[in-house]
Amino acid sequence: MGMTMTQKILAAHAGLDSVSAGQLIMAKLDVVMANDITGPMALPVFRQMSDTVYDKEKVVLVPDHFTPNKDIMSAENSKSIREFAKAQGLTNYFEIGQMGIEHALLPEKGLVVAGECIIGADSHTCTYGALGAFSTGVGTTDIATGMATGELWFKVPGALKFHLVGKPSQYVSGKDIIIHIIGLIGVDGALYKSMEFVGEGIRSLSMDDRFTIANMAIEAGAKNGIFPVDDLAESYIKEHSEKSYKVYEADEDAQYDEEYTIDLSKIRPTVAFPHLPGNAKTIDQIEEMEPIKIDQVVIGSCTNGRMEDLRRAAAILKGQKVHEDVRVIVIPATQKIYKQCIAEGLVDIFIDAGCSFNTPSCGPCMGGHMGVLAAGEKCVSTTNRNFVGRMGHVDSLIYLASPEVAAASAIAGIIAGPEKRGER
Amino acid sequence: MGMTMTQKILAAHAGLDSVSAGQLIMAKLDVVMANDITGPMALPVFRQMSDTVYDKEKVVLVPDHFTPNKDIMSAENSKSIREFAKAQGLTNYFEIGQMGIEHALLPEKGLVVAGECIIGADSHTCTYGALGAFSTGVGTTDIATGMATGELWFKVPGALKFHLVGKPSQYVSGKDIIIHIIGLIGVDGALYKSMEFVGEGIRSLSMDDRFTIANMAIEAGAKNGIFPVDDLAESYIKEHSEKSYKVYEADEDAQYDEEYTIDLSKIRPTVAFPHLPGNAKTIDQIEEMEPIKIDQVVIGSCTNGRMEDLRRAAAILKGQKVHEDVRVIVIPATQKIYKQCIAEGLVDIFIDAGCSFNTPSCGPCMGGHMGVLAAGEKCVSTTNRNFVGRMGHVDSLIYLASPEVAAASAIAGIIAGPEKRGER
Repeated sequence: MGMTMTQKILAAHAGLDSVSAGQLIMAKLDVVMANDITGPMALPVFRQMSDTVYDKEKVVLVPDHFTPNKDIMSAENSKSIREFAKAQGLTNYFEIGQMGIEHALLPEKGLVVAGECIIGADSHTCTYGALGAFSTGVGTTDIATGMATGELWFKVPGALKFHLVGKPSQYVSGKDIIIHIIGLIGVDGALYKSMEFVGEGIRSLSMDDRFTIANMAIEAGAKNGIFPVDDLAESYIKEHSEKSYKVYEADEDAQYDEEYTIDLSKIRPTVAFPHLPGNAKTIDQIEEMEPIKIDQVVIGSCTNGRMEDLRRAAAILKGQKVHEDVRVIVIPATQKIYKQCIAEGLVDIFIDAGCSFNTPSCGPCMGGHMGVLAAGEKCVSTTNRNFVGRMGHVDSLIYLASPEVAAASAIAGIIAGPEKRGER
Repeated sequence: MGMTMTQKILAAHAGLDSVSAGQLIMAKLDVVMANDITGPMALPVFRQMSDTVYDKEKVVLVPDHFTPNKDIMSAENSKSIREFAKAQGLTNYFEIGQMGIEHALLPEKGLVVAGECIIGADSHTCTYGALGAFSTGVGTTDIATGMATGELWFKVPGALKFHLVGKPSQYVSGKDIIIHIIGLIGVDGALYKSMEFVGEGIRSLSMDDRFTIANMAIEAGAKNGIFPVDDLAESYIKEHSEKSYKVYEADEDAQYDEEYTIDLSKIRPTVAFPHLPGNAKTIDQIEEMEPIKIDQVVIGSCTNGRMEDLRRAAAILKGQKVHEDVRVIVIPATQKIYKQCIAEGLVDIFIDAGCSFNTPSCGPCMGGHMGVLAAGEKCVSTTNRNFVGRMGHVDSLIYLASPEVAAASAIAGIIAGPEKRGER
C-alpha cells in the first residue's frame, strides 16, 4: 500500500521500508526545539534521563514568548534555559537581540529543511511543513526525551488531501485560505491526521502563505500540515540553509481518509469569529451584519508576522490613520524582518498611521504581554487562536484575520475588508 | 528678601508679590498629568470632588508604564483612563502608537513651557525644570485635586544653588553630572528643596543633558530642579510649542541654604552602584576594582531615552557586537524619537550589534515589563533609580550609568567606560 508524504518521511526516520496509519514507530529527530515557557518545564524531566543533549546543534532553544521578560517569573524561566544552553554548549540558542519568534526564526536561520523530522514544544511547530518537513508540536516530557535521546515514538498519522486549484484574488492570502479550510472541516476535522496540500494552486502561494497555512494545521487538530517541495520551496531552502535536504513525494496510491478540492479563486477574505478558529465568516457575510466595533488590532505572530504579511498590512495603512478608538500593535517576527521593514520604509508607515511597532516576540497572542486585552474588549488579530480568554480577560473577544483585514479594520474601527476602503 | 527662581514662579501662580521658604500657598496649575499607574488610582478620588476636569487641555493622561499592556490588570487600568479621557473630552490623552514616556513626550509636544506650575503623579515630573518651569511629582490625592480644581497647596521650598562651571569632556553627559552631584550631597541632600542650576557651565549642556539632570533632582530628595531659560531653552520651547511662556530669574539677593560650585570639566564618567543613586563611583575607581560581570543593559527611560542619548549609545555600538553574556534592551522615549532613530540609521546599528529595540514605554525601569531581572542578575541601566528590587528580583543589582557607559559595558560584558574601548 502506498504512503503519504508524511508517512514516507516518518518511515525513513524510523529506518523502515514502509509504515501505515496507526503504526507505532520510533523515529530519529533532526531538530528538537523548545521556548522560554516549555524549555524550563522540560529541563527537570531531561535531567532524569541524561546529563547531555544528544546533539548540540540539533537542540534549539528560543526565548520568544515572554521576552523581553515581562516579570520576575519569566526572567527566571529565561535564565534557566540560557544557563542550560551555555552549560550544554548549544549552538542554536537565540538571545533577545538576535532572535525572533521560533517558527519564523528556524526557517529563516536555515535550521529546518525539507524531509526532516522535527519536534517542538509548541503546538505551532507544524509551520515547517511548508518546507516539506514532518514537523509537529509535542509536550514537555516528549521534548525532554527528544533532547536526551534524539528519538521519539509516533503513531503514524492518516491523512487528508487538499487539492488546491485556482489563484487567490488580490486581497486573499494564506490566512484566509486556512481559516476557510478549518471552517470547512472543523477544529477537529483533521484530528491526529496529516493535512497534505497538493495541486497546481500551490504555485500561486508564496512561501509566507504556505507557512501561514501549515502553521494553523493544528487548529484543525492535525498532527501536521505539509506541502510538496516545489521550485519555490527549494529556492527558499537553498537561500537560507546550508543543510542537505531530501524531497519526499506521496505515492500515487497513498491512502487518504478524505479528499477536498479547494478553489482558491473562490475564497473571500475570511475571519474566524470567537471562540473557534473554525468559526469562519467571509467579509461579505460580515458586511451584512451590524458593524462590530473593535478596540485593538494585532499584526504579527508565528502565523502572520513575516515580511509579506507586514508588506500587505503596510500597503493598506500607508497614508492612513488608525481609528481613534483603536490601538494597533505590530510585531515583526524576527530581527531580520524588523530590519527589512526599516529598509522598505514600513516602520515609518506604521508609526505615521499611529501604530505601536514592537520588538520580535509572541507578545499578546496567548495573553503573554505587549497588548493583553481588558474585559469586554474586541480584537482583530492575525494570530492563530481565538479561544475564550486567549489574549487576556475571559470576557474579551478575538477575531482572527489576515494582515489586510486587520489593517483595514484598524482604520475603520470596525471589522472591515480591504476591498471597500474607498467606500466608507 | 529676594526670591529664588522657583519661589518667583510659585508666587506668580499664587497671586502673591512674594513668598518665602516654608510658607503655605495655593497655586494655580498649568498642567496636571497622570499615567496608567497613577491615573486609575486618582479617578475615584477625583470623582468625590467633581464630575468634570478643570480644563480639558491642561489635564494630560499618558499610558506609558505598562503599555502595550503586559497583563489583564494593566489592561483594565489603561482602559479606565482611556474611557475617562474620552468621557471628559481631554485633548491630551496619548494612546499607544502616538505616545511616548510622559516626561519626554510633554516637552516634545510643547505641553510644558518656561514659567509654568506643573504637577504630575510621577516622581520624575521634575524633568520639566530643564525648561525653566516649576514642576514636581505628587501623589494620587493631590493629582485628583489638581484635576478637579486646577489648584494645589504647596509649602514653598528653600533652595540649593549649583554653580556649574567649565565644559564636560567628550564622554561625560548629563547623567554623569547628576550622579556626581547626588554622590556629593546624598540622596536626601536636597530634601524638599529646589535644586537651582546656574552658571556659565550650563551653556555647554544640551537640552537633553538638562532634562536628564532635572529628571534626577528627585533622587536627591529635591522638590524640583530648575535651569535658567537661556537662548537654547527658548529655541527649544519655540520649536516645540505654541504656548506663551514666561522667563523668571532668581533675585540677586535670593537666599540659598547651600551653594556648590561644580566644575564640569573635572567630572568623570560616573556610575551609581547598588542600591542608591548617590552611591557614585567614577569609571577610574571602577577600573581599579575586580571586573563586574553584567547580564543586562537597558538604554532608555525618561532619564536617558532621548535622541542625543540614543545617538551617544549608538556611536559606541556602531560596528560592534554586544557581549555574548549580555542582553541589551534599547527603548526610544517617544514615537518621534523612534522615527528619528530610523532616519539616522540608529535602529540598524542597535540591531546589527545585537540589541533588542523596543516600542516607547517605561519598560523595565521600575520592574514593569520589557526586561525584568531574575535573581542574582546585574544590570547597567540608564534609568534613574537603583533601589533594592527596582527592576525585578530583590536579589538583582542595578548600576545607573550614562548611555555611553551602558553601551561600552554592553560590549565588554563588564562595567566599562567608553574611553578605553580600544584597549580591552
